[in-house]
Amino acid sequence: MAAFPLPPGSVIGILGGGQLGRMLALAAARLGFDVAILEPEPDSPAARVAAHSIVAAYDDPAALARLAELADVITYEFENVPAQAVAMLTELGAATAPNARALAVAQDRVEEKSFLNKAGVPTVAFAEAHDAASAAEAMALVGAPALMKTRRDGYDGKGQKWVEHAAGAAAALKDLGGAPAIVEAPADFLRELSVIAARGRDGEIAVYPPGENHHENGVLRRTAAPAKITKKAAEQIERIAHQILNSLDYVGVIGVELFEIKGGKLLVNEIAPRVHNTGHWTQDGCEVDQFEQHIRAVAGWPLGPTEPHAFVEMTNLLGEEAADWPRLAAEPESRLHLYGKREIKPGRKMGHVNRLHPLD
Amino acid sequence: MAAFPLPPGSVIGILGGGQLGRMLALAAARLGFDVAILEPEPDSPAARVAAHSIVAAYDDPAALARLAELADVITYEFENVPAQAVAMLTELGAATAPNARALAVAQDRVEEKSFLNKAGVPTVAFAEAHDAASAAEAMALVGAPALMKTRRDGYDGKGQKWVEHAAGAAAALKDLGGAPAIVEAPADFLRELSVIAARGRDGEIAVYPPGENHHENGVLRRTAAPAKITKKAAEQIERIAHQILNSLDYVGVIGVELFEIKGGKLLVNEIAPRVHNTGHWTQDGCEVDQFEQHIRAVAGWPLGPTEPHAFVEMTNLLGEEAADWPRLAAEPESRLHLYGKREIKPGRKMGHVNRLHPLD
Repeated sequence: MAAFPLPPGSVIGILGGGQLGRMLALAAARLGFDVAILEPEPDSPAARVAAHSIVAAYDDPAALARLAELADVITYEFENVPAQAVAMLTELGAATAPNARALAVAQDRVEEKSFLNKAGVPTVAFAEAHDAASAAEAMALVGAPALMKTRRDGYDGKGQKWVEHAAGAAAALKDLGGAPAIVEAPADFLRELSVIAARGRDGEIAVYPPGENHHENGVLRRTAAPAKITKKAAEQIERIAHQILNSLDYVGVIGVELFEIKGGKLLVNEIAPRVHNTGHWTQDGCEVDQFEQHIRAVAGWPLGPTEPHAFVEMTNLLGEEAADWPRLAAEPESRLHLYGKREIKPGRKMGHVNRLHPLD
Repeated sequence: MAAFPLPPGSVIGILGGGQLGRMLALAAARLGFDVAILEPEPDSPAARVAAHSIVAAYDDPAALARLAELADVITYEFENVPAQAVAMLTELGAATAPNARALAVAQDRVEEKSFLNKAGVPTVAFAEAHDAASAAEAMALVGAPALMKTRRDGYDGKGQKWVEHAAGAAAALKDLGGAPAIVEAPADFLRELSVIAARGRDGEIAVYPPGENHHENGVLRRTAAPAKITKKAAEQIERIAHQILNSLDYVGVIGVELFEIKGGKLLVNEIAPRVHNTGHWTQDGCEVDQFEQHIRAVAGWPLGPTEPHAFVEMTNLLGEEAADWPRLAAEPESRLHLYGKREIKPGRKMGHVNRLHPLD
């Protein structure tokens, strides 16, 4: 097992070769680390900026053994890492971060909300549903209308159904493929906020100022940060971040999505145990961005400062929008980040632009 | 020949795999480019963050052919590129930047100063010396004491001799190995400044605010930027940058070192047709740093803004100083940049630290 803090020249292993892995790899390189990427697709965005690339399934035993041999610490660009892969890495004696519990909690919406409530963090009312009877019970508990979601593997608004009346619960469950589900009370929120926070190996916590998010068709379109919020809300969000990170004995960067309800109440919608799309603004708004912060945390380094030096509007470039790069590159206030993806697909995250404005 | 501006996904070729190549590669990746490194040493700092790596001599014909095939544009991390290599790349139809003339001028101190004076840019008095007779003539012209330097291949204070009296000129020439030399009048300067500037393919010019440099034993130790200079000096430096860039029909980033003489007069000491150690402060002091600016220029993109948002003290980490990373990583005002070099050697540039302070 590696000794922390990891010295420069150590190898950071990353499961996942997409844009988050790529931006983590670039941050690791700035600090003098080498990177090893494990990713099933060849020629991935992250592999092209990494010293080592392993092209294999995430649960391929030989690939995991190779990664464990190469890397001094292993982290993830996504939360849906097969539990088996984490178990294998642990068996191999590899240091991994964030821990298996954080991944397990984030992989299952029922586990997630149960964990949050137990940690003293408020969420919408919810109940689990796995058959017609439990679905009816869940609707009775939560009330109609409600949102039914698969417990696992949902993202960007996929795997969700509105249930208008209790009577429709069984049909909705069937529509979702019969997979175990969660029934959630709708959150009548004023806006969605999110906070990016980090916890180091020594328990040190650093929290970025929250951002305000705008989704379109279930996909993040825009984050504006720092969000204009009351001091009370800021303190509450800071407290929520601490509660989550400490309860999970977490190491690394986490993204926490929150609903702001009328009257100022805050509910946590979901947590992502990784760098997060709503934290991309930190690349150009803070001296140490979420990617370097994550590398610092998993390498056992002290965390960096989180004060912003600009107000940033981050806009995702989806599909053909990335073709607009000549215009964006010419905007003096715009910092362009492109992911090197070979193929433009409708709605695919191809890059993002951070537009900078002076802080108030 | 590639059509400019190069779209994301294009390949930027770089001759040289050191820290400058590495930081160029990281900047290129942020904009969605792939990078190909040609470098004689295996496992170089830049190759470890690049999609393609060619390990071969800089003038290896097969390697240059491979690079020309891979890359849509080819640039350099150092100025002492063999003229033969540039000629071969040109013959292969490769787009290269900066151009052969800029490289040739920067490779030869006599050519350099002759070019500068012809472009209307003041330098110290100088003359060439290639044998005892011309050395004596040069001393007569320049006056004693004078500094004798090899015309080519000197860097970081190497290849230089003080000549106290005209009579010592021939001996000094011999001490320098008998290579063709330049004799320069000493510059009784108050301080050394430098300016990083860029010129795009359309002739657009962007100039960063000048920095103030401190050398130790001929090696850059520290740059503080923006330097405190008069408005008149700032205008003069801006004009000098324009004169140099336009006279060379330059494309890319250039580093210009200047002496500030008593009375405010400015003399150009040397030019480096590449990203420059005295421009590292831009990484954390400006939204678009010199590395992204160079990639933008050679790719035919519009140049980015050069306004600083912080006052930066850049300090090189030489040799064992890099072992101080745990302390530096914990300083909230310090941004650490480490180059991933495998071996610490005395005086070797291992990394640098940018310390940020508010602008006045």
